[in-house]
Amino acid sequence: MKGLNIMEKKNVTFKDIAEYTGFSKTTISRYFNNPDSITLENQEKIADALEALDYKENKVARILANGQTEYVGVIIPNLYFHYHAAMLNCILSTYEQYGYKFLVFVGNEHKETEREYISELLAYKIEGMIILSYTIPSEELASYNVPIVTIEREDKFVCSVNTDNYAGAKQATELLIDNGCDVLIHLNSDMTDEVPAYGRVKAFKDICAERGIKNELIIVDLGAEHNTAKEKITRIIDELDAKYPNQKKGIFMPNDTYANIMLNVLIRKHGTLPDDYRIVGFDNSPISAEAVIPISTVDQQIDTMAREAMELLVTQMNERKKRRPEPLEVPLHRIVTPVLVRRETTD
Amino acid sequence: MKGLNIMEKKNVTFKDIAEYTGFSKTTISRYFNNPDSITLENQEKIADALEALDYKENKVARILANGQTEYVGVIIPNLYFHYHAAMLNCILSTYEQYGYKFLVFVGNEHKETEREYISELLAYKIEGMIILSYTIPSEELASYNVPIVTIEREDKFVCSVNTDNYAGAKQATELLIDNGCDVLIHLNSDMTDEVPAYGRVKAFKDICAERGIKNELIIVDLGAEHNTAKEKITRIIDELDAKYPNQKKGIFMPNDTYANIMLNVLIRKHGTLPDDYRIVGFDNSPISAEAVIPISTVDQQIDTMAREAMELLVTQMNERKKRRPEPLEVPLHRIVTPVLVRRETTD
Repeated sequence: MKGLNIMEKKNVTFKDIAEYTGFSKTTISRYFNNPDSITLENQEKIADALEALDYKENKVARILANGQTEYVGVIIPNLYFHYHAAMLNCILSTYEQYGYKFLVFVGNEHKETEREYISELLAYKIEGMIILSYTIPSEELASYNVPIVTIEREDKFVCSVNTDNYAGAKQATELLIDNGCDVLIHLNSDMTDEVPAYGRVKAFKDICAERGIKNELIIVDLGAEHNTAKEKITRIIDELDAKYPNQKKGIFMPNDTYANIMLNVLIRKHGTLPDDYRIVGFDNSPISAEAVIPISTVDQQIDTMAREAMELLVTQMNERKKRRPEPLEVPLHRIVTPVLVRRETTD
Repeated sequence: MKGLNIMEKKNVTFKDIAEYTGFSKTTISRYFNNPDSITLENQEKIADALEALDYKENKVARILANGQTEYVGVIIPNLYFHYHAAMLNCILSTYEQYGYKFLVFVGNEHKETEREYISELLAYKIEGMIILSYTIPSEELASYNVPIVTIEREDKFVCSVNTDNYAGAKQATELLIDNGCDVLIHLNSDMTDEVPAYGRVKAFKDICAERGIKNELIIVDLGAEHNTAKEKITRIIDELDAKYPNQKKGIFMPNDTYANIMLNVLIRKHGTLPDDYRIVGFDNSPISAEAVIPISTVDQQIDTMAREAMELLVTQMNERKKRRPEPLEVPLHRIVTPVLVRRETTD
């Protein structure tokens, strides 16, 4: 069973064993994954080193002994929004730093499946969860009694990392005003002020009121399916063209995936991005830079958010491992400051 | 610890318990995740039902008892290619059918980190792996002695699911010929004939030779970073424009992510997709339909491939659970037939 063992990551790494034995890291990893590929003599040298370095055996036995699985659940609403895929990528890449392994689930708004999945994770004694999905209220999440960090969703009862949505939307709105737009339009879904993204709606309304700019808030559910979103956005553009002819329209979209659809629909309708349209997205997810006309957006600093979320989660998980853990008295909420990115869909 | 228990998924589901007790599935899931939210009386009714239905306790204890973790590792090269994100999405969504939970890792070509990660998964006794990453040779993968299915990579020593790359590329090449192109150009990376995607290069050369069509194979590593890929593709277009003026160029791109970059670069250079360019991508990943001009492509049927991969893996994993498992004598290789999708980048 030698091939199935592994050292305790937090104490002894491949690098440590490589340094101790003088072998390369490749040789050490071969020892674990494919021992027959190295000589018996070298296998013995490494086995001796593992003993000297106090190497720990089978992880499953260890889980039962101390309850530490090094597993973290990640619950994502969908992979349609480029923002979610980018965030997932950043979360997964923290493996090199912390050694936590991620059980990933995409809920697609099937609330009961999501609950059942989380129940399973808890039964398997995962150490913590990062939750981007918004189906389960934070009060229920808190009752699971496991370290949790949410990202950009209702978070009253659990720790969270959010963008400063108000500050980001303020910059987006001001950029459109500075572009000389006659009327500002913000599309967003229907939500309560408990959702962090509500700050975008509030900032849009506040700044437009302050600056005395004509504006329209369009509350619409564009969904997570491309053709439906495209049809709805096409209809909205037709309405805006009819309602505000010869007026410069500044459109603030709720995310870059939708901003890219709006851009493409306008290009198909007018041959190019017309002079009477300016567009700003939100997120700075890859699609905003990759669009045919790179899209101005609000950079949520997805990598920073993922790193902060993991840091906040690791702190909670480590606390649990102490002899006398002191749980947080109140949930911690970290706010990441977004940065305006000016590209070609604004002046 | 009532809240941390869960029934054996394969035997008793939330639905079974709901039907047995007459409660809703929501109530049952509350019982597991947040028992205090339902009355003591109802908690007791559900507890009785679990006993009657022979409900199984803590999963970790079960893992030690029978070695079944219900965990599957998924190793992905990167999330830059839309194909990988789409495939991941399809793999994760098999949870509802099989109950397997997925540990996801993105290797980004860091071979040693990938090996270390796999070592950890093996130490945790995962039941199987789906591998899209191409860093570790299949001979080494086979030596891990755990059920494995690879997708679209070198697969000599392990089970796999691949596209019929030759058939797909044949259709793409013929479409460009039927579009009256004077010269056909195929971009692809340098690879050996052990890689399934090599079939695309072969079909392109074969069909061009058969039909006596002028052609050029451009071997280039466009990488997994947008700006680099865009710069390289821009340079290639400049060269093609200079080399083949007034000739209709049929471009067969190795994937839709790159096909979309080529389309966007051409639109930026010429204001639209010029009459002397036709483009076909490969994969039918979401970006091909979402592009400003929807891209003709070869549909790999990503959902079918994910389903076949999981089916092939589950068969192997189930075999292991038998008293006298009979390992496969030779690795199984399933081939999925691709379908040509004609959109607007060809006539």
